[in-house]
Amino acid sequence: MKKVVVIGGGTGNFVVLLGLKKYKVDLSAIVSMADDGGSTGVLRDELGVLPPGDVRQCLVALSDSSRMMRSLMNYRFESGGLEGHSFGNLLLSALEKVTGSFEKAVEEAGRILSIKGKVIPVTTNQARLQMVLGNGKVLHGEGEIMQAQESLLGFKSIYLEPFPKADYHAVDELMNADLIVFGPGGLYTSLIPNLLVDGIGKALQESQAKKVFVVNLINKKAQTPGFKASDYIREIERFIGQDIFDYILINSLPPPQHLIEHYAAEGELVENNLTGDLRVLARDLLDIEKPEYSKADAIARMRAFIRHDSQKLARELMNLVDHL
Amino acid sequence: MKKVVVIGGGTGNFVVLLGLKKYKVDLSAIVSMADDGGSTGVLRDELGVLPPGDVRQCLVALSDSSRMMRSLMNYRFESGGLEGHSFGNLLLSALEKVTGSFEKAVEEAGRILSIKGKVIPVTTNQARLQMVLGNGKVLHGEGEIMQAQESLLGFKSIYLEPFPKADYHAVDELMNADLIVFGPGGLYTSLIPNLLVDGIGKALQESQAKKVFVVNLINKKAQTPGFKASDYIREIERFIGQDIFDYILINSLPPPQHLIEHYAAEGELVENNLTGDLRVLARDLLDIEKPEYSKADAIARMRAFIRHDSQKLARELMNLVDHL
Repeated sequence: MKKVVVIGGGTGNFVVLLGLKKYKVDLSAIVSMADDGGSTGVLRDELGVLPPGDVRQCLVALSDSSRMMRSLMNYRFESGGLEGHSFGNLLLSALEKVTGSFEKAVEEAGRILSIKGKVIPVTTNQARLQMVLGNGKVLHGEGEIMQAQESLLGFKSIYLEPFPKADYHAVDELMNADLIVFGPGGLYTSLIPNLLVDGIGKALQESQAKKVFVVNLINKKAQTPGFKASDYIREIERFIGQDIFDYILINSLPPPQHLIEHYAAEGELVENNLTGDLRVLARDLLDIEKPEYSKADAIARMRAFIRHDSQKLARELMNLVDHL
Repeated sequence: MKKVVVIGGGTGNFVVLLGLKKYKVDLSAIVSMADDGGSTGVLRDELGVLPPGDVRQCLVALSDSSRMMRSLMNYRFESGGLEGHSFGNLLLSALEKVTGSFEKAVEEAGRILSIKGKVIPVTTNQARLQMVLGNGKVLHGEGEIMQAQESLLGFKSIYLEPFPKADYHAVDELMNADLIVFGPGGLYTSLIPNLLVDGIGKALQESQAKKVFVVNLINKKAQTPGFKASDYIREIERFIGQDIFDYILINSLPPPQHLIEHYAAEGELVENNLTGDLRVLARDLLDIEKPEYSKADAIARMRAFIRHDSQKLARELMNLVDHL
């Protein structure tokens, strides 16, 4: 069975995993640990746990349990001291306390949710994302970077503090992969944070796996304004060197005009300016329906309008796997 | 297979169920829904859910899942907005929100925890325990009654408000039982609240099951000071009529003197003054070791010194079952 390793964080990972889990592949998700906003941020601050949010999304994507269990994991308490916490985050945090380690917590949660495949935190060291802007101002944490009003263009540096070591299993998965799927996801908040972990860049360079980058559909206004596909590639290559990707998978189907307008405040479409690049696979990857699984999650629902179709995406990725 | 129905609430139920689940019986727990202290009280107030605490204890007692899962259910968050909440309470409350009903929530939690038998809330109506004292003062809620500095002796009335209807399944279980086990547990806070639910007293009277009352080991100073076994029986009979019990199971082994002294501030031993009553079974029921399962739960640990031994208790109860 071919080994496919998906690396990223947040909703992007979720969509890729949801599609791929229906195929006969040995599937692993390596998950960014830079999240510190919302429920996850409160749990980090108040309980000193590792960030559960992105891991939770991957677990739900890979879960073979009932729809009710998946709704439960994404259920957010609506009032009182619990307000805003998703149940799945509380499960992971309580498991971390009970088992004494985040890795064991993820394993146990995977068992409870009957997941297909593995979910592996990219690191189990506590670290915060930091970004030094052009004017010297430092943004502390993924939450602050995501909310930043200033354009992040021309930032001086981005790093995790303290400098975390890659989880041994994460390196192992990358080294033994047949296909590595990077993205889609927030460039500076979900994707690059993985590359800032000691050992991950090297593993990506040295792994004999074929590597595919899935380009985002939409730019985030405050983070990647006006970015074209080549800008994404250039930014990523700053951290892992040139020509790391064997394939660049990008959507070719334009979304309906009314959705583009609906999104205008948040950001515009990512333009494919990579014509001539032989690595590029331009395919219809667009989700044309509001996906059902987002019902329980207001945030996912908000983002659900222009997004990748997990089935279309998985089909294209499996095409690559079949030709390995 | 004989049907044994345990009715009560809190730690008392826990001990009975923990012992009985090792035997081949059709086991059900009917659980008081009057709890409104601690984590349970906060969840009732802030989320409007039904009280999960006593149900959680029964689910853990009947669980066949790993020790880790049972520790998880009893794990209490130690800081921040989650402080004091046990994870199992949050699970039940989130399930109630996701499934839309407390009954379904208990069922689903039972599945997650692979329980043996059934856990049934005595009612699924929201109601609060109220107690009118001799001086006219009204104590609102189980929490207030439990904490009361005044002696509750000579209280005028105790009731649930609004007057709740028994859950259909609870009545059904009682009517079809071969043996009904009532107690041990807090007399006014865990036991009698079941009898204040419309339909439960009638079911207890009409059921052809043999009925056994397990007498508490220790009096609670503020609630049942100086109570002897006959006082417990008398108080219970006020609500369900005389001679309802076929057996009265009471401990015969005196605890070591140093434990009695340790307990002096909380209350004294319940004296067996029922000599001559042919229903009485005086047996060694005493736990002489600190039970392991309480490690995760500070409250259980506190109460763990003079308590029933679940195995001894179960053996005596099964003796009754075998002679039905």
